[in-house]
Amino acid sequence: MHPTTQLLQEARDRVTFPVQDLTKLIYGNEEIYETFMKAQKVIASEPSIRNHPDYHNWGRKEQIIKSYEKLRVMHQHLNLANAAHWAPMLSLFQGTTPSAVSFGMTVPALRFLGTDEQFNLWGPKFLTMEIVAAYAQTEIGHGSDVQNLETTATYDSQTNDFVLHTPSVSAVKFWPGELGFLSNYALVYAKLIFNGKNKGVHPFMVQIRDNATHKPLQGVVVGDIGPKLGYSTKDNGFLAFENYRIPLNSLLARYVRIENGQFSKHGNEKISYASMMVSRQLIIFVYPRMAAQSLTVAIRYSITRQQFTNDKREENSVLEYQTQQDKLLPRLATCYGMIFAGLRIMELVDDNFHRVQKKDFSTLQQSHAILSALKAWSSQWVVDTAEWCRLSCGGHGYAHYSGIPAIYFDTAPNVTLEGENQVMYLQVARYLLQEKVPFYFNFVLHIKETLANQSTDFGQLLKLTLTLQLISVAKKIKDTIGTGKNFQQIWNEVVGVQLLSVAQRYAEYFTYLVFQEYISSANPSVKEVLQQMCDLYSLQVILDNPNTLIESGRITVDQFKQFNEIKIDLFNKLKPQALGLVEAFNFTDNALRTCIGCHDGKPYEYIYEWATKENSVNIKGVPQAVNDLMGTKIKARL
Amino acid sequence: MHPTTQLLQEARDRVTFPVQDLTKLIYGNEEIYETFMKAQKVIASEPSIRNHPDYHNWGRKEQIIKSYEKLRVMHQHLNLANAAHWAPMLSLFQGTTPSAVSFGMTVPALRFLGTDEQFNLWGPKFLTMEIVAAYAQTEIGHGSDVQNLETTATYDSQTNDFVLHTPSVSAVKFWPGELGFLSNYALVYAKLIFNGKNKGVHPFMVQIRDNATHKPLQGVVVGDIGPKLGYSTKDNGFLAFENYRIPLNSLLARYVRIENGQFSKHGNEKISYASMMVSRQLIIFVYPRMAAQSLTVAIRYSITRQQFTNDKREENSVLEYQTQQDKLLPRLATCYGMIFAGLRIMELVDDNFHRVQKKDFSTLQQSHAILSALKAWSSQWVVDTAEWCRLSCGGHGYAHYSGIPAIYFDTAPNVTLEGENQVMYLQVARYLLQEKVPFYFNFVLHIKETLANQSTDFGQLLKLTLTLQLISVAKKIKDTIGTGKNFQQIWNEVVGVQLLSVAQRYAEYFTYLVFQEYISSANPSVKEVLQQMCDLYSLQVILDNPNTLIESGRITVDQFKQFNEIKIDLFNKLKPQALGLVEAFNFTDNALRTCIGCHDGKPYEYIYEWATKENSVNIKGVPQAVNDLMGTKIKARL
Repeated sequence: MHPTTQLLQEARDRVTFPVQDLTKLIYGNEEIYETFMKAQKVIASEPSIRNHPDYHNWGRKEQIIKSYEKLRVMHQHLNLANAAHWAPMLSLFQGTTPSAVSFGMTVPALRFLGTDEQFNLWGPKFLTMEIVAAYAQTEIGHGSDVQNLETTATYDSQTNDFVLHTPSVSAVKFWPGELGFLSNYALVYAKLIFNGKNKGVHPFMVQIRDNATHKPLQGVVVGDIGPKLGYSTKDNGFLAFENYRIPLNSLLARYVRIENGQFSKHGNEKISYASMMVSRQLIIFVYPRMAAQSLTVAIRYSITRQQFTNDKREENSVLEYQTQQDKLLPRLATCYGMIFAGLRIMELVDDNFHRVQKKDFSTLQQSHAILSALKAWSSQWVVDTAEWCRLSCGGHGYAHYSGIPAIYFDTAPNVTLEGENQVMYLQVARYLLQEKVPFYFNFVLHIKETLANQSTDFGQLLKLTLTLQLISVAKKIKDTIGTGKNFQQIWNEVVGVQLLSVAQRYAEYFTYLVFQEYISSANPSVKEVLQQMCDLYSLQVILDNPNTLIESGRITVDQFKQFNEIKIDLFNKLKPQALGLVEAFNFTDNALRTCIGCHDGKPYEYIYEWATKENSVNIKGVPQAVNDLMGTKIKARL
Repeated sequence: MHPTTQLLQEARDRVTFPVQDLTKLIYGNEEIYETFMKAQKVIASEPSIRNHPDYHNWGRKEQIIKSYEKLRVMHQHLNLANAAHWAPMLSLFQGTTPSAVSFGMTVPALRFLGTDEQFNLWGPKFLTMEIVAAYAQTEIGHGSDVQNLETTATYDSQTNDFVLHTPSVSAVKFWPGELGFLSNYALVYAKLIFNGKNKGVHPFMVQIRDNATHKPLQGVVVGDIGPKLGYSTKDNGFLAFENYRIPLNSLLARYVRIENGQFSKHGNEKISYASMMVSRQLIIFVYPRMAAQSLTVAIRYSITRQQFTNDKREENSVLEYQTQQDKLLPRLATCYGMIFAGLRIMELVDDNFHRVQKKDFSTLQQSHAILSALKAWSSQWVVDTAEWCRLSCGGHGYAHYSGIPAIYFDTAPNVTLEGENQVMYLQVARYLLQEKVPFYFNFVLHIKETLANQSTDFGQLLKLTLTLQLISVAKKIKDTIGTGKNFQQIWNEVVGVQLLSVAQRYAEYFTYLVFQEYISSANPSVKEVLQQMCDLYSLQVILDNPNTLIESGRITVDQFKQFNEIKIDLFNKLKPQALGLVEAFNFTDNALRTCIGCHDGKPYEYIYEWATKENSVNIKGVPQAVNDLMGTKIKARL
């Protein structure tokens, strides 16, 4: 057998739990898993959309045009209107998936904010892609701060319609995905001016391109904003209106209405949270799975990569090094926690939607807080994990042929979009300080008990840290009131950094709770390995943020040193299971977009093959151009 | 005045120290500063090489070809053979600068490892670019682990020359910059086989391409390895030899020689460190200046960007938020420390070279340790800083028009190249544990004194942390010896993570020492602001890694809380100086490659202008192609 193939196969043989039992847990249900496997198969088997080793040599133009071919093919094979169908696909492609914004953001917003008539009018046209609609909220000068948006929709009582207008450069809609080229409609957030009065920012469903020619309509200026860190195929767009008339029915009218020349509000506005919930839930559900891809590559590669000679004069697999384990194993453990959190959150969001439809808003704010905390925490963690995985693969990690840089590129925007992380965390902190108590916030009911509990059980320590930080920031706010600063100044200038910390502690604690729930209900065959993973996850969180515990005097120096010993012990237990833990995700080589982390473990052969046979700059005339230049021109002209 | 221009101008007016006095300090000497300003001017004024807003839409082929045009033009205006000339330029271009590897790595290696005759034979041809030579050490299967390289150079006593050969795929030379297209020579590291015996890995100066046609010579397989995270214009290459004969004189022969059929060694091999010193020194010198570029953009933008309404119903500049200050100000302070460290290291390296030439090796290992520590610490910090700056600019930071993503791209490789950071840190740790004592390692002479000193002066706390960590890891090693693990296993499996930590602590402490030296000798006009910066730098280091101090019981909870108060106080002092502190670097708008951080402070106008006028995907046929597809084809084919 090929030597590196053998290394990988031996590692596979050392795994002691049934990998398929974890696979079932990871995908939540059979339908998601089957669809996911089908999507992997379709992408790998259609040459026109298969991931291509040369892809990152191309210019954006070629990449964008190819992305629409993917859209067409995937629509033929899968029902993209079903989130369970297309959400897992987001992790499988080179480049982002066109129509994800339209289906994942605009359709839910239409459902929650439009009347039933409005949903029935436009909704079905999405399914046939007669309508593709961007979600046009952000402006050049205004992001998270929705109430200060500048675009105006002025009601004209003469004609009983609206005039949409962009009054300044900072008011130009900017960043909405799929706006630049793909969309023919947009859900536009604009300040409603009614009889000269500002009635606040509301959503309008607006046609922006011609149905037949797909060209911008008169009064609409629209296009792509330019190249970015990643997301090269995503046509993030700009959109400006020049006194553009739209019919009365454009205003999504479930909660605000203009009828018979009168403006009125209806129902509970809290529902406006609901549409954002869908996209945030998807961020939590999908992207930790891309971190799992980078971990799959890094762990396979770390087993096949050997470096420095041991005392038997053999080279060591780099996964034998403690520093390498430290980069990868705690992240693998966290990844599982986050995947479980994402699955649990799907259930919470579903449950909440059913309640809301019955006008029961009792779990709305709590769901919103959990989603915000997990969206912020997981999105940053995924980006960091891609980076650590990249670094753990040494030089080869930096090359696109590792598959990892693109994961970093295309997950990085999640930190900012759909609620900027810091803004999310501040909302979570605000909620925590209100001492609402239901379900996953029970800990605030038991503060005294938590403080009195001397256990060094990891779960208790996570709860204690969260509790102590919450008490500390509440006290600081209380102490500062009356010293000349108002609440807003205290919030922004005095406790900002502490608030972010307590919100992140909440996300970590919630994930611990869910991790334990999953272990309780798991098949006995995988309970032990999952408990080791949960221990490592919790321990790493404690070790990463020990100050609160140490300051409180609750953890002594000796205990702390002991924790480091436990961690090393967990490394030794989990190292032989690591390959099984990543292979439980069942990614195909094509989906991983890698040549260093393939299933058969032959990194070097594939690296050389891709460089010599698949790299267009070597084969399509560049060498000739460069050779001419270097051979004669540069020297002659120096 | 334009409103955002006014915000920036008012901030400029609030700066209380003379900015030009800092500029002098930052650039070290007049020659470096003048050359830097000239390079900025040349690049901005030559349309063919000016940084281009559309650049990141292009494919690699176009980008590579343009990079050679830059090379040509810059060679006409500046002496690229002089490191003081071209090193600062590395921060000014879109894409990497061709010939930097040849001048920065290969020429120094030739100087230190070749005989005088060999240097006189090849050296002058570099100046005219008759020779451009890659530094071909790394192989597909072997990076940091030089002694296990597989490429062989077999001495043939019949013909008195060598046969270079690549015995396997893992032995293919891989990654050397400028190898793919630019170089016609390469400095090849290969295992010298002499009379059937392995004489170790040595460097050979090898012609690989034809002088006239620039085509690969018979027996040489060479090309570009493919696309990467960044470095798109850098032709990192592969190189394989098929029993390729090279003359006897190819072996760089200052320290090993084959004469009259005899192999012999001469002089002190330690000198082989020396050539790597040049490139590491450049990494420390140049790249913190790219972090300064990202900080310039982020701080200017944070002053002009307004978000959320304050109690006067005006929107706040985001730099008013504590969370934004926390992202940017400690990094700005650290940046200054690192720039000073880079300047001091240039002097140390120069001094060391003069000693070495007189066969005085007394400062060689110490210089090597300092360079390794600072290379590792600064390179990771620069990448992290680019990322934080990007995030501090919200969505706009993610776009290439901010200028920041490309800084991240092109600084990320420094973590891995020229000595992978972890390998560097482990070497530093090894050196620290040997208790060598000269100059910047004095602290090891005063361990008892440091432990007894109860001061909470920040410098003392940095020294104390370093000392405690060093003692702790030494004790752990001592305690583990005799428990069945050999030294290598203890090093790799037991204390690896602690070793990385202690080495980083050394880098931080060294930077503190140099920062204080620079303050002592600075113009009185800037002493106060620099001392505040040094305080913030030191404090942030302490707050980032408090465990050692807290565990030791030397810092109480109350002191720790007080440190946080001091930090907020420093934020309030430094916030009004921040603009002056970044503008002291004097980057032109073109060098910053930004439209959101320009000197005149009009981010939104430029963002819209670049999107609508400079973005080729909007103007070169993409909309038509996409419109056709979306207007009819996709729908028809669904």
